[in-house]
Amino acid sequence: MDTPHAIGTTPGEALAPDEALASRDLSPEEFRAAFRNHAAGVAVVTADPGDGPVGMTATSVFSVSATPPLLVFSVSELSSATPGILRADSVVVHLLGSGQAEIAKRFATSGIDRFEDPSTWDRLPTGEPYLPAAHAWIRGTIVNRFTAGGSTLVVVNATDASYPEAGSAEASAESARPLVYHNRTWHQLGEHSRIA
Amino acid sequence: MDTPHAIGTTPGEALAPDEALASRDLSPEEFRAAFRNHAAGVAVVTADPGDGPVGMTATSVFSVSATPPLLVFSVSELSSATPGILRADSVVVHLLGSGQAEIAKRFATSGIDRFEDPSTWDRLPTGEPYLPAAHAWIRGTIVNRFTAGGSTLVVVNATDASYPEAGSAEASAESARPLVYHNRTWHQLGEHSRIA
Repeated sequence: MDTPHAIGTTPGEALAPDEALASRDLSPEEFRAAFRNHAAGVAVVTADPGDGPVGMTATSVFSVSATPPLLVFSVSELSSATPGILRADSVVVHLLGSGQAEIAKRFATSGIDRFEDPSTWDRLPTGEPYLPAAHAWIRGTIVNRFTAGGSTLVVVNATDASYPEAGSAEASAESARPLVYHNRTWHQLGEHSRIA
Repeated sequence: MDTPHAIGTTPGEALAPDEALASRDLSPEEFRAAFRNHAAGVAVVTADPGDGPVGMTATSVFSVSATPPLLVFSVSELSSATPGILRADSVVVHLLGSGQAEIAKRFATSGIDRFEDPSTWDRLPTGEPYLPAAHAWIRGTIVNRFTAGGSTLVVVNATDASYPEAGSAEASAESARPLVYHNRTWHQLGEHSRIA
């Protein structure tokens, strides 16, 4: 077994009980290295704060409560779409299938107009821009914003959704397999990745 | 294309622009169905609020900021370990590899003593219980708790970590591939799941 990279301590039997942990902030490099092996589902968040559509790829979306139906995502102050999303009252959170990696890449690319091609998006009757090609989407109103370092946690109360009916051909399609992001690569879940 | 299950609207070209969305809370069943295809990395959070170790499996861990190094996870009031974790000042967040699905299952099982086998856990010099077999772990202090419905978002400032050195045999091992949870099944990422 190789020596793991340890900050302030070493794991397993090598750990001396009286050894003091460094207990300082991890450096950005250490923090990213510790998280390197953590995978995430991929979503695209869109909104229109009143002056045009904004959108960004997010790997930080999860459901926190089914009653009431609440989801959370985080936006970094470093992302160009963040100010617009934080000014909006409502958002659409698209949960992507593995056939939609191109959408994820487009909404993660800086310096382009992510809504340039009008065939890729439309508006809901309530006005929000959305991506009809996404596997599933959830519309909701922003009910809370919490600051955490250079990011903001956004809490959304879900009011509308669209997703393939379980067991339908669309739900079973190859392109409907979950899209997962890990260490700068895109992955598709399916029988091939399942652990017995 | 099958008709997708839509709440208040239908996607794509069938969407009538003047059709009103229902814009009510999604039911728990609708909300869960919309999220069914969203995968997540798997973590186990452990702590000791002063009266013994507690721990739970969490699929809601993500990093929100590298400077300062902050991560977030959510705990549901329905989980037995939640009161203990919310009383603690510090936690250890273990990011699991695909060889550690047994750990994830144990910390997701109700009605058992998750720390019964003393060979599976130890304590850090700072006192927190931790799981030496986990692929990587991050210790940190709880700096914020936000309520969202029946759950609490916990913000952790990372102070210590242990993870395999990039490129080491341990980091490249089969068991070190990311463990992913999706729709009640466990998955392993790797070359086999990668999208070209």
